[in-house]
Amino acid sequence: MAVDVASLVAQAREGRPRAVARLISLVEGASPQLREVMAALAPRCGRAYVVGLTGSPGVGKSTSTSALVTAYRQRGKRVGILAVDPSSPFSGGALLGDRVRMNDHASDPGVYIRSMATRGHLGGLAWAAPQAIRVLDAAGCDVILVETVGVGQSEVEIAAQADTSVVLLAPGMGDGIQAAKAGILEIGDVYVVNKADRDGADATVRELNHMLGLGEARKPGDWRPPVVKTVAARGEGVDEVVAALEKHHGWMEEHGVLAERRAARAAGEIESIAVTALRERMGELSGDKRLPALAERVLSGALDPYTAADELIQSLTEG
Amino acid sequence: MAVDVASLVAQAREGRPRAVARLISLVEGASPQLREVMAALAPRCGRAYVVGLTGSPGVGKSTSTSALVTAYRQRGKRVGILAVDPSSPFSGGALLGDRVRMNDHASDPGVYIRSMATRGHLGGLAWAAPQAIRVLDAAGCDVILVETVGVGQSEVEIAAQADTSVVLLAPGMGDGIQAAKAGILEIGDVYVVNKADRDGADATVRELNHMLGLGEARKPGDWRPPVVKTVAARGEGVDEVVAALEKHHGWMEEHGVLAERRAARAAGEIESIAVTALRERMGELSGDKRLPALAERVLSGALDPYTAADELIQSLTEG
Repeated sequence: MAVDVASLVAQAREGRPRAVARLISLVEGASPQLREVMAALAPRCGRAYVVGLTGSPGVGKSTSTSALVTAYRQRGKRVGILAVDPSSPFSGGALLGDRVRMNDHASDPGVYIRSMATRGHLGGLAWAAPQAIRVLDAAGCDVILVETVGVGQSEVEIAAQADTSVVLLAPGMGDGIQAAKAGILEIGDVYVVNKADRDGADATVRELNHMLGLGEARKPGDWRPPVVKTVAARGEGVDEVVAALEKHHGWMEEHGVLAERRAARAAGEIESIAVTALRERMGELSGDKRLPALAERVLSGALDPYTAADELIQSLTEG
Repeated sequence: MAVDVASLVAQAREGRPRAVARLISLVEGASPQLREVMAALAPRCGRAYVVGLTGSPGVGKSTSTSALVTAYRQRGKRVGILAVDPSSPFSGGALLGDRVRMNDHASDPGVYIRSMATRGHLGGLAWAAPQAIRVLDAAGCDVILVETVGVGQSEVEIAAQADTSVVLLAPGMGDGIQAAKAGILEIGDVYVVNKADRDGADATVRELNHMLGLGEARKPGDWRPPVVKTVAARGEGVDEVVAALEKHHGWMEEHGVLAERRAARAAGEIESIAVTALRERMGELSGDKRLPALAERVLSGALDPYTAADELIQSLTEG
């Protein structure tokens, strides 16, 4: 079903929630009209501050996201929330269910909330998230919170999409050693120990601070990720999280890191669109029998897979 | 460090274990010499029967693999075991530790055992596993058991590499509903309920059979995945598993399914080598400033990411 892109984009630029939602649906559905959408949005992009939120199930991710939204709304910011589910094609949509707490913001015209499944998508999260961020950015969001829903290897991918990465932990479940194993110590710009009214919160903060202090020595001016305690359900510590985010934002601007990260992100976005396009062309070659013919020759031992890949690339570039 | 490929390949073809191991290390390390290796191996590939084994941690995967090896050795077959760890770049090598039971076979010259980490690899499991399988195949293995080590989304990927997929469950932990959620009901050709001396084994078998009976009606001649009970640690039921595998193998040959699956696998292998090669070229473009220049134009809003991707693909094909 073709969509009137020009009118949809105009409405999204005015901040109309339904237009924003429909544009993100085009991203989710990998619509061929995205090319037109992105061309129309391009001059309006690049203003939003993108914050990634990751953490294991149970740390209070959606409560924390909701509390951050409240804090930014109090500061007069327009906020977009992108809840991404990069889980396996088989996990189903169940993980997207726990969005209840977000209902607090559902009627606020300054807040866009959108869940997006990327499972089964050819280009996955790396392809879809940046384009959804572009939509929210062009719609006038000042802050975009990108939250993973579900579990797994997504932390690193989400971190790659954000200006600032927030890693959430809770006492007892995300202690330092676990954190180090999961590799999250390498991706957080700000650490939040939520549910800080529980036993063991101070120990978790201490251990985290200790782990963060290990590794190579920092140069003066380097960023030292702060660890903030919150009880997100009661809004406690949330202002401190916002302050830590602002500080990181300022530090990145001062040291040219923001421009660097955004350049890397744009390069990754271009690359993943290109790879997806090339894969699609390969899919077409599969339909027109060129790839199956190569496969037959490999199976018979007449051809090795590298030479076959060369021939495949050759076919691609010939169109 | 360049390797004398011709001599290594000659030794591997004679079945020398160290040569086999070194060739798989070249795969693991994504050596540029692989092109030469695969060209030399091509005429000798395509004879092995490839069996994938998946299942959650705790179902007794490595015990079952070991028991299968014993059974195939009793039948005079040469066996290759590829234990693949497709886990995240951060999980480390710890998951590869539990190979102890395989020691039973370590001194048997008719058995090749090899762990392979694919984490952090550009092309991942889809790129590396087929090439490692080629090495074992050319070395004269009659049967190759591909086992995942670790957890996560790998089941589907491993299934895509195998002629026959075995899904392992244990009573209580992998009951039918869980299985359906995890999507494994769509990938198994043979189901094994291991630890069948435990309570609940019969219930698990019943539930599995029930779940497998749901879904669309089968046509006459369609494959109905059998459910086999084992106590792998005592070798009980293992002959029945081998019988189920042979039956599935025969059914696939009779119905042209084996040729179909292998053609799809070869096509996937070619495609993933081609995509990896294209990604490498993109990496080179990143080094020579063409990709960063495109990224800058996207960031400034002068260019949309799709047009940038077009230009990137153009650069690729110009070499």
